Amino acid sequence: MQISRHISLKIYTNGSIRAPLTLHHVKRAMFSTCLVKLTKRKFDHTNNIDTSRLEFTKRNELIVHDLNRFYPSMSDLQSRNPDMTAESISDQDHDNYKQITVKKFLDTFEKNPQRLNGEDDYKSFLQLNGRIKNIRYSGKKIAFIDLFDSRYNVKIQVILNLNKLKQETSEERFQEVVQLLKKGDYIKAFGIPGFSESRSHTLSLKGTKLPVLLSAAQYPLPSQLKDELKARKNRVLDYQVNGVSSLLLRSNIIRLLRSFLDKQEFIEVETPILSSKSNGANARPFITKSGSLNENLELRIAPELWLKRLIISGLDRVYEIGKVFRNEGVDSTHNPEFTLLEFYERYLSMTDLIEKSEDLFKHILVNLELKKSEYHFSPAFDNLYRTLEQANWKFRRIEFLPTLSQELNIDFSLIDLNDAEKLLESLPAHSRKELFENVPPGELSSQQILNKLCSFYLESRYCDTIHPTIIFHHPRIISPLAKAHPSNQQITKRFEMFINGKEYINAYEEENCPQLQEKNFQLQQFSKETIKNKENDELISPDEGFINAMKSGMPPVGGFGLGVDRLCMLLMNKGRIEDVLPFGCVDDVKTQ
Amino acid sequence: MQISRHISLKIYTNGSIRAPLTLHHVKRAMFSTCLVKLTKRKFDHTNNIDTSRLEFTKRNELIVHDLNRFYPSMSDLQSRNPDMTAESISDQDHDNYKQITVKKFLDTFEKNPQRLNGEDDYKSFLQLNGRIKNIRYSGKKIAFIDLFDSRYNVKIQVILNLNKLKQETSEERFQEVVQLLKKGDYIKAFGIPGFSESRSHTLSLKGTKLPVLLSAAQYPLPSQLKDELKARKNRVLDYQVNGVSSLLLRSNIIRLLRSFLDKQEFIEVETPILSSKSNGANARPFITKSGSLNENLELRIAPELWLKRLIISGLDRVYEIGKVFRNEGVDSTHNPEFTLLEFYERYLSMTDLIEKSEDLFKHILVNLELKKSEYHFSPAFDNLYRTLEQANWKFRRIEFLPTLSQELNIDFSLIDLNDAEKLLESLPAHSRKELFENVPPGELSSQQILNKLCSFYLESRYCDTIHPTIIFHHPRIISPLAKAHPSNQQITKRFEMFINGKEYINAYEEENCPQLQEKNFQLQQFSKETIKNKENDELISPDEGFINAMKSGMPPVGGFGLGVDRLCMLLMNKGRIEDVLPFGCVDDVKTQ
Repeated sequence: MQISRHISLKIYTNGSIRAPLTLHHVKRAMFSTCLVKLTKRKFDHTNNIDTSRLEFTKRNELIVHDLNRFYPSMSDLQSRNPDMTAESISDQDHDNYKQITVKKFLDTFEKNPQRLNGEDDYKSFLQLNGRIKNIRYSGKKIAFIDLFDSRYNVKIQVILNLNKLKQETSEERFQEVVQLLKKGDYIKAFGIPGFSESRSHTLSLKGTKLPVLLSAAQYPLPSQLKDELKARKNRVLDYQVNGVSSLLLRSNIIRLLRSFLDKQEFIEVETPILSSKSNGANARPFITKSGSLNENLELRIAPELWLKRLIISGLDRVYEIGKVFRNEGVDSTHNPEFTLLEFYERYLSMTDLIEKSEDLFKHILVNLELKKSEYHFSPAFDNLYRTLEQANWKFRRIEFLPTLSQELNIDFSLIDLNDAEKLLESLPAHSRKELFENVPPGELSSQQILNKLCSFYLESRYCDTIHPTIIFHHPRIISPLAKAHPSNQQITKRFEMFINGKEYINAYEEENCPQLQEKNFQLQQFSKETIKNKENDELISPDEGFINAMKSGMPPVGGFGLGVDRLCMLLMNKGRIEDVLPFGCVDDVKTQ
Repeated sequence: MQISRHISLKIYTNGSIRAPLTLHHVKRAMFSTCLVKLTKRKFDHTNNIDTSRLEFTKRNELIVHDLNRFYPSMSDLQSRNPDMTAESISDQDHDNYKQITVKKFLDTFEKNPQRLNGEDDYKSFLQLNGRIKNIRYSGKKIAFIDLFDSRYNVKIQVILNLNKLKQETSEERFQEVVQLLKKGDYIKAFGIPGFSESRSHTLSLKGTKLPVLLSAAQYPLPSQLKDELKARKNRVLDYQVNGVSSLLLRSNIIRLLRSFLDKQEFIEVETPILSSKSNGANARPFITKSGSLNENLELRIAPELWLKRLIISGLDRVYEIGKVFRNEGVDSTHNPEFTLLEFYERYLSMTDLIEKSEDLFKHILVNLELKKSEYHFSPAFDNLYRTLEQANWKFRRIEFLPTLSQELNIDFSLIDLNDAEKLLESLPAHSRKELFENVPPGELSSQQILNKLCSFYLESRYCDTIHPTIIFHHPRIISPLAKAHPSNQQITKRFEMFINGKEYINAYEEENCPQLQEKNFQLQQFSKETIKNKENDELISPDEGFINAMKSGMPPVGGFGLGVDRLCMLLMNKGRIEDVLPFGCVDDVKTQ
């Protein structure tokens, strides 16, 4: 149903005519003969506000000459200045009109229909702030405004009916005010809760005073924005058109991580980002220069060694949710700055860590499921939830070397994993051909060979499922900070957890013996020095300060790391990391 | 009372004698004839553990030959391997000995004396992990171990009495185990709750099994560490000797900031740290280079413009607690990386912001006061609490220009504050002489002159008190992101809050008019270009992307910034910022 109307209206605005939205003590318009004609424009019920850029351009001519009128200060609106005019907010309004949000209005009157019982409530004077989502006109005397609250994605209808406002304003003023408003403006509306007089009997705020403009938009938002590239290059526009639910969900996920740990009395800390030497992971750091120290500093690549220092210092349970930086390229799952959760707890075994990881996932999923109506989760989320629920919230488990031995039909327990050449030689011909063809001896380190074997034979064959799957007992040579297995020094009490082939968790009992830790550092250093390539060059470096701290006594400790952005991608069913970062990856951030 | 004793004991440790702390399937000692004699050493009751470095050095000779024995894996201790020996933890132990923390032990038995009613409880078998704070000996058959939990700064006494362990162990083994333990080691103790047989009748864990070593210290901690410089250069040592309470208190303060905002449904976000251009404050940024983008990136100096973009995007209440970076020197209140809280809320006036700031301080102080017994607050904390309580939690308020006018006896409302030369000329001679002597005209910008006047005549004269004091209505030229006062465009709806002369809060209604914001940017840019000096060069830069986002419609919004480290210094009564950072300032971080 489309009803066409011709509305003819002239707005004359100059210094001599009191514009109704102006607060009289705001510096008045300096222009004198700006004339805006809004004549013979078509409106219809489904898209009946004129959002053309031209119309905004015309209004912008008014705006630039009277900025304070279109952007009043909240201080001014709130002040109880006795000089204030009827159209602004008087002392009486402060007392009579109760401030309420759009959400609260709906919670109060829509969720409890018996409250109004279908009748207008002439005793409840309310004032509501919101953004204009739409304006419809019914003749010259009635306007319907959809007042929107983007945070909760809810709106109410405001009805401005001149016949109900006659005591407050003239017809001329009414039209002046109403026609000046545009989609995208923020306004304060005044009225009583009630119902439209149409057949739909829609819950509405029925205006008892003219609204006050809080802030004007200067260009129209598009009614939709489906071009992903454009959306990524302008997230502010994207959020306004497509909503802010991804920001809310991310915030909620991180709050659930915190609540899980806070309930267990973990202490949250912030360890240094800038130091002379980043460490704690295999990665290339960002380097910057301190003007005052006149020397280079590195941005941290992991908080691990700082957090373990705090365990040595005397904290029993510690965590950090913070940014780490790795000087690498951007792809669908990598951004140079990303958010990591690491926690450390005294006296935890690998088994304890696995159980705690399972509990953490259960905590997050069960609590998000409770908010299902709010967030509209994807089928992928449901699938993960059902799968884990059916598995009694347990992860699947496969052991690193035995599974690899089985896949390749050789016994890795008989091979010295630190010797890259022997390791390569021991592989069956088909595997060497498939993964390492044309790789000359001495080109790859043990670390690189084992990581490739793990990726090819374990991760892609066993972990490409929605059921979270753990690979455990990693070789020590690729786990330089993990505690060696008590009865097999080639492997460690470490595990990684994968979902659909992507790694989420990396956790282990921490090496707490200074001599063994030193030896692990040396093995990495030896590999760096003997096999020179870009990836190998990023292996972890020895940290004498940390070794010395360990010697004062380091308790047994379990440590846990989780990529927070990846977790958000999983739970929000997003395929690209930029979709869970407020302003996308660094290449998008640059342009905004 | 000092009781001297001569203890003569020989420990022979080699591969053939089963060391009681060894788990039998841990790889055994490789050395064969290491002989340690602990003979004729003096012990007394007050300091009766031999903590000399020499003794540690001797034990370290044992350690390096049997690392797995001194640093067992928790997996191993927990495994229900049927081969496990009596001295390690058997299946039965798992079932019989309930795991409990030192804190829980005290909460259970010390706080509820009726629970034990002065009697040993032979039915409650407990296992406790902890760190050895002290060992005392009473003859060859009894040892008293203080088992410490550094997190809660509590300890219990463990009594090992050979006569009660006869069924479990031999006298030789008993002495071997007990004499091998050192202050600083982590152990697991087994026993029942009860009381010492001395007159003091001390609540103790009375050993029913020999303890298990969890991790050995390799050097003795000093009994005290009062040298502040040394403590700052080695925080791990500092925390172990002087306790971790500063870490706990900081964590608690930040949790209170979060809880205040979370209760009001603020959304926490993480905005970008790396971007092509840092902005949002007057400061020099750190610059780094991205290898993959092959271009320079800057570290953020403030999240302000990102957070305001999120308000434009549609969030109604948003906050971030995060690191910001300013490339400046280290002093008692400045570190190049520090933690800032910023929050933004739609529709807030300056008055609302002041009230919210007062509420925030009340929330923090009242909640900390409840934990007074836990944290031992300083008289300074009490003073702040009482002062605010007596003021009904209201801050003092002084207005910027009127107060300055009064102090200098000139009317600033008649002066064009954007004109540096006129501003300087208008000052009384004594003031020019005091603050700006020998400054040639054109050397200083308006911003620099006003900041100096504010510091000298307002901050130091009015704000040097424990009662939080607000300076409000700052000149617009020094507040380029704040909203101008509706009836006086020279000043803004901004305030700063000071305690004892130090700034804590900077807050204002945000400029939401794109044209006025652009003009503010231009004024700063003009000042940068006309008056060249280091400080002026750090003035805020124009941000076209932000202006364009504003044009889509920016609601009125109140913004708030708080230096979290400074707040911690205040509440923890610390004079230097490094005392509230986990590893101190960047110059200390470098050395650790």
